[in-house]
Amino acid sequence: MANFDLMRRLAKSQGGKIILLVMDGVGGLPMQPGGLTELEAAQTPNMDRLAEEGSVGLSHPIARGITPGSGPAHLALFGYDALEYEVGRGVLSAFGVGLDMGPTDVAARGNFCTVDENGLITDRRAGRIPTEVGEEMVRLLRTITVPGVEFEVQIEKEYRFVLVLRGEGLHGGVADTDPQMTGKPPLTARALVPEAEHTAALVNAWIDKAREVLKDQHPANMMILRGFAQDPNLPKMQDIFKLTPACVAVYPMYKGVSKLVGMRIAETDAHTTTEGEFQKVAEIWEDHDFVFCHIKYTDSRGEDGNFDAKVKVIEEVDRALPMLLDLKPDVLVITGDHSTPAAYKAHSWHPVPTLLWAPGTQMPDRAVAFGERECMTGALGQFPATDLLPMALAHASRLDKFGA
Amino acid sequence: MANFDLMRRLAKSQGGKIILLVMDGVGGLPMQPGGLTELEAAQTPNMDRLAEEGSVGLSHPIARGITPGSGPAHLALFGYDALEYEVGRGVLSAFGVGLDMGPTDVAARGNFCTVDENGLITDRRAGRIPTEVGEEMVRLLRTITVPGVEFEVQIEKEYRFVLVLRGEGLHGGVADTDPQMTGKPPLTARALVPEAEHTAALVNAWIDKAREVLKDQHPANMMILRGFAQDPNLPKMQDIFKLTPACVAVYPMYKGVSKLVGMRIAETDAHTTTEGEFQKVAEIWEDHDFVFCHIKYTDSRGEDGNFDAKVKVIEEVDRALPMLLDLKPDVLVITGDHSTPAAYKAHSWHPVPTLLWAPGTQMPDRAVAFGERECMTGALGQFPATDLLPMALAHASRLDKFGA
Repeated sequence: MANFDLMRRLAKSQGGKIILLVMDGVGGLPMQPGGLTELEAAQTPNMDRLAEEGSVGLSHPIARGITPGSGPAHLALFGYDALEYEVGRGVLSAFGVGLDMGPTDVAARGNFCTVDENGLITDRRAGRIPTEVGEEMVRLLRTITVPGVEFEVQIEKEYRFVLVLRGEGLHGGVADTDPQMTGKPPLTARALVPEAEHTAALVNAWIDKAREVLKDQHPANMMILRGFAQDPNLPKMQDIFKLTPACVAVYPMYKGVSKLVGMRIAETDAHTTTEGEFQKVAEIWEDHDFVFCHIKYTDSRGEDGNFDAKVKVIEEVDRALPMLLDLKPDVLVITGDHSTPAAYKAHSWHPVPTLLWAPGTQMPDRAVAFGERECMTGALGQFPATDLLPMALAHASRLDKFGA
Repeated sequence: MANFDLMRRLAKSQGGKIILLVMDGVGGLPMQPGGLTELEAAQTPNMDRLAEEGSVGLSHPIARGITPGSGPAHLALFGYDALEYEVGRGVLSAFGVGLDMGPTDVAARGNFCTVDENGLITDRRAGRIPTEVGEEMVRLLRTITVPGVEFEVQIEKEYRFVLVLRGEGLHGGVADTDPQMTGKPPLTARALVPEAEHTAALVNAWIDKAREVLKDQHPANMMILRGFAQDPNLPKMQDIFKLTPACVAVYPMYKGVSKLVGMRIAETDAHTTTEGEFQKVAEIWEDHDFVFCHIKYTDSRGEDGNFDAKVKVIEEVDRALPMLLDLKPDVLVITGDHSTPAAYKAHSWHPVPTLLWAPGTQMPDRAVAFGERECMTGALGQFPATDLLPMALAHASRLDKFGA
């Protein structure tokens, strides 16, 4: 469990510089019994050398057996107990589609659905309409205005969209309008706390208009909302760990989570390559003592179930790795936020290979390569992901002694 | 630590089926330096194959260094934090001798003791009388009646017996009458909370009569009571983990603990063999998605200090194992509740070899056999026993993702 009081007490604002390189979903499984995992199959001479010199182990993002979403999995890598610091689904979805969240804004996830002539839901996903159809529906919703608040709507994927309310006096304590079953009408937005009454009224005014603009559409003739949430106002890494942290990532979701914990976000666009990201790390390196760099496509290829393509992404990262080593970080951590085995085509709970390289402070082990089986016998053992940042700080000589 | 809120939130009532095979006290030690443990010495071709295909590791029943009794050790295997969910000794003893406990019943452990002419205890164990003598004393105690409550008495072993009070308005908050030293008289039963006053009075009425019926016996001319307790009313596995669980065990104590967590108890008798137990698992397999099967004699032979006999029990289980594999469980876990090294002739704190076999979802490691040293380098690492059930659920695809 994250112990922020201890970190606030021991962390120093001076010390070594840290790079946290996250290959999203890097952990994997063999496709056949007795086979190699993606990371084991990949040709990674640079990472293997670092593994031989450094310490390796396996991390558990949330707890043993728990499959994490990307939001909580990254919070854990940043040292935050994801069970204690939970970020609402609406906020994560807003980040995911690149919408900014102001301190008082409220976000919710939306589903287009199908209702019958009595307004009862017959399909909670509107027949899983394709994204292009969802986008058309979103254009209709954008025509709605309600006095005293600004609404922003953005497609997420297929039948899913994000709704953001911007204005004063808003509150995220609003119950889902999704009845979670068919045969019932969408629920009225209900305030869960008195301070959310105003927000619930605004949402209901918007829902009434949404019903009107969607009613002649097919099959998406209504919508339901869930996961209303505001910026959770997390403590910042500057305050807890005495770091000046920065994020280099391509996908909005990861920039969003990084922003929540106080990172400066480097400018990138959707076409930035791995080399482009590493170049960006180099550009901001002088101003930061902690840089988080996020590689998305290991996860994407895992989700596709494409073992070979995931291997290729890992190899590409390995080839570019000298760009980061040239910066002479005191600590380089290479890991994933969770496992996404191609054999699964999805996130999984399997523990995540972790490499900690810190010349002069690292504890060597017998591992000679970076891969799941090597990590099972490494110096880091198996550990909760929230322990990774304190370990990186220790290796960077950024933690005072506890007690006399 | 067991996180039941998280489990309640993520566990699904659909998914794969799980067998938890517990060889009681299976963990062991070499008899000589450099030797093999019982599990390593046993010829177990079936378990070795499962270890090669699956994941192995070592579990800590309660915490590192803590030697558990069978009650808390099994609760941990069922996912319950035994420090949080403590089951009173009286209740465990009642189960141990096969007495049922109703929701309001109170149970206590009894010791026959020897007192001098002034009523001061001279021997807290009455010279460790043999079980047959203890049984005679129990027959005397059974003649006692107290209006308004029913008393049941049953021999446990030698000088130890169990007392169960059955009736309305009872409460387990009664202090021990055992002064824990010689030279003092047995204490009066004292209520620890006001609600237990009535129970304490009933117990004292019974004690007065017990003093009378025992006074001319030798050496067991008195008795002392401790561990008053009621059904702890544990949350049930159905509710927490969304399982329909069942227990196949021969000894009453294990049936009792299983019942406390909501398992259906399969009918067996004291003569049921390992094959008989596995046959019972097959009979109830269709109606359950989680079956716990308990093998007692690994522990018994360990307690005897008989290394070779313990090896033989393990080999017998291995030979019968195809009966369980024929059921095609999605997840098969083979482990112990604790270690009982023959070299110790007692339970010990040493971590417990664990094998998790789940074709398609298991993370392979380099282990090629099931034994302590192989488990040290396995994919499961070392883990608290309470994490075992969540891991089994994950491998059975019975847990939703945490967060987006």
